[in-house]
Amino acid sequence: MGIYIAVDIGGTQMRAASFPPQGYEPLKIKRTATQSPEHSPSKRLITLIKDVIPQQEEIISIGVAAPGPLHPKTGVILETPNIPALHHFPITDYLSEHFKVPVVLDNDANLAVLSEWTVGAGKGHQHLIYLTISTGIGSGIIIAGRLLHGAQGLAPELGHTTVLPNGPRCGCGQLGHLEAVASGPAIAGWVTQALSQGQQSTLSDLLPLTAKIVAQSAALGDQLALAAFRRAGTFIGQALADFIHIFNPSMVIFGGGVSRSGDLLLSPVKEALNKHIMSPNYIQNLTITTAVLGDNAGLIGALILAQKSIL
Amino acid sequence: MGIYIAVDIGGTQMRAASFPPQGYEPLKIKRTATQSPEHSPSKRLITLIKDVIPQQEEIISIGVAAPGPLHPKTGVILETPNIPALHHFPITDYLSEHFKVPVVLDNDANLAVLSEWTVGAGKGHQHLIYLTISTGIGSGIIIAGRLLHGAQGLAPELGHTTVLPNGPRCGCGQLGHLEAVASGPAIAGWVTQALSQGQQSTLSDLLPLTAKIVAQSAALGDQLALAAFRRAGTFIGQALADFIHIFNPSMVIFGGGVSRSGDLLLSPVKEALNKHIMSPNYIQNLTITTAVLGDNAGLIGALILAQKSIL
Repeated sequence: MGIYIAVDIGGTQMRAASFPPQGYEPLKIKRTATQSPEHSPSKRLITLIKDVIPQQEEIISIGVAAPGPLHPKTGVILETPNIPALHHFPITDYLSEHFKVPVVLDNDANLAVLSEWTVGAGKGHQHLIYLTISTGIGSGIIIAGRLLHGAQGLAPELGHTTVLPNGPRCGCGQLGHLEAVASGPAIAGWVTQALSQGQQSTLSDLLPLTAKIVAQSAALGDQLALAAFRRAGTFIGQALADFIHIFNPSMVIFGGGVSRSGDLLLSPVKEALNKHIMSPNYIQNLTITTAVLGDNAGLIGALILAQKSIL
Repeated sequence: MGIYIAVDIGGTQMRAASFPPQGYEPLKIKRTATQSPEHSPSKRLITLIKDVIPQQEEIISIGVAAPGPLHPKTGVILETPNIPALHHFPITDYLSEHFKVPVVLDNDANLAVLSEWTVGAGKGHQHLIYLTISTGIGSGIIIAGRLLHGAQGLAPELGHTTVLPNGPRCGCGQLGHLEAVASGPAIAGWVTQALSQGQQSTLSDLLPLTAKIVAQSAALGDQLALAAFRRAGTFIGQALADFIHIFNPSMVIFGGGVSRSGDLLLSPVKEALNKHIMSPNYIQNLTITTAVLGDNAGLIGALILAQKSIL
């Protein structure tokens, strides 16, 4: 029969799971810290995979989700700010040589949209934008039933588009990117700055802030916290109008920790979107929703990638 | 043997041409004014097509290029600000009923990129952005060898993305779109406004202005004219960085009248692009060039569409 292996590599932890030839329920699933003083992440990954192989089962193929930028075709991780040991690491060759099976790689945002599209919120849609709002703003896009990769697999970085020229500096070094004004740290940072300038808020007792803390205060009616989410949501809505003019999708899915704050973020997003969309044709058949697969999206996406690799 | 018919409908004129089963050299080509007091554009189109059919030749299929927005799948032109008589006109059904052959429709920007990709500047590239800078800013995009249409065929409107929040009003009604700050009329309008505010320039004798007149003065060293192109090019370069982060193309083609001003526009475009791109990986294998098919791009694109329609 054989099994599929799916791996999801994050900055903090790596997860591996084995799956039967059909279906999306794991046979065995394990996690470990990505980085440890003892062994390299690559060696720890081999041990982790071996640990989830049920006895006497043969691997059919392995799918790997990793943080981008990476090169899906060559299977090389390019730059991983949070996992220096994997910089320019040819992960598919490495695993393929060890396990003697096909190994395929894609970035976590692409695999999240692949999983939401196949078994999650996006089922049945052929034109889909997925935006994940958390520490950064990542994205994955399905166009006519296919993932958008670009010439070198560096697409689509929707979080790195300019929404506020000469605005706050983004993690990538540029100014005024969507990620720099609407990610979790951007929300917390904007509130922290407002407090330092003397604005009154219940949040002044809760430093250092996270977007989650700000969301909790917003839920209790704190005006500064509400303004912070309104501001982030307004920027996201403005950018989303651009993305919809560019892609004309039938569905937009929001994932990531910050979007779990629900209407707190999505109400201003929709308000700004309605204001900035140039024709109702773009939104009259558009569904805006939230991801349903949560933390498993990357792992399920890696499984789907492994399944596709042998077609 | 049979022939293909290609039609290119513009706001001012319509052109039709017949082509042999292979190749891109027209057998007969004719043009007429799109609008006339005597007959509707649709009736005039039938006459025009009949006029280019060589004697005793049967039509294989007809490809039609028209201004967007339109619906390629249903073959309906949606809104044509410049040709009111064709609003919501089911042009493929109409021509198909008359000539009893397959008829296919797409918008002029999509067909321009299709032609540049197949026989023009973009040959061999699979990931391509085409931007046409003229009265408006139109765009066509090839992703992994396929045209980007979106769920309803309303993609990709790169000209209608926000580059200057709360900036000048765009023809679509929104504020600060790329088209509103960098199209031909935007360039002429910016100079006209500067003159009305007392700026000195040789252009004050040349009112009313067009982008072409501004380009000619820039070539003669007029500082205001140079500044106008620098400003437009800088906005295009900033937006292009976003588009490249989104699509990761291997080629960008500039078409349209304004881009014929060459380095006057493209130098500031490239300068701003280099400033705003977040990683050299995106541009080290990127070719930026200009369209080669000129006014024939739409017609050749309609031919390629007609050829594909029978595959």
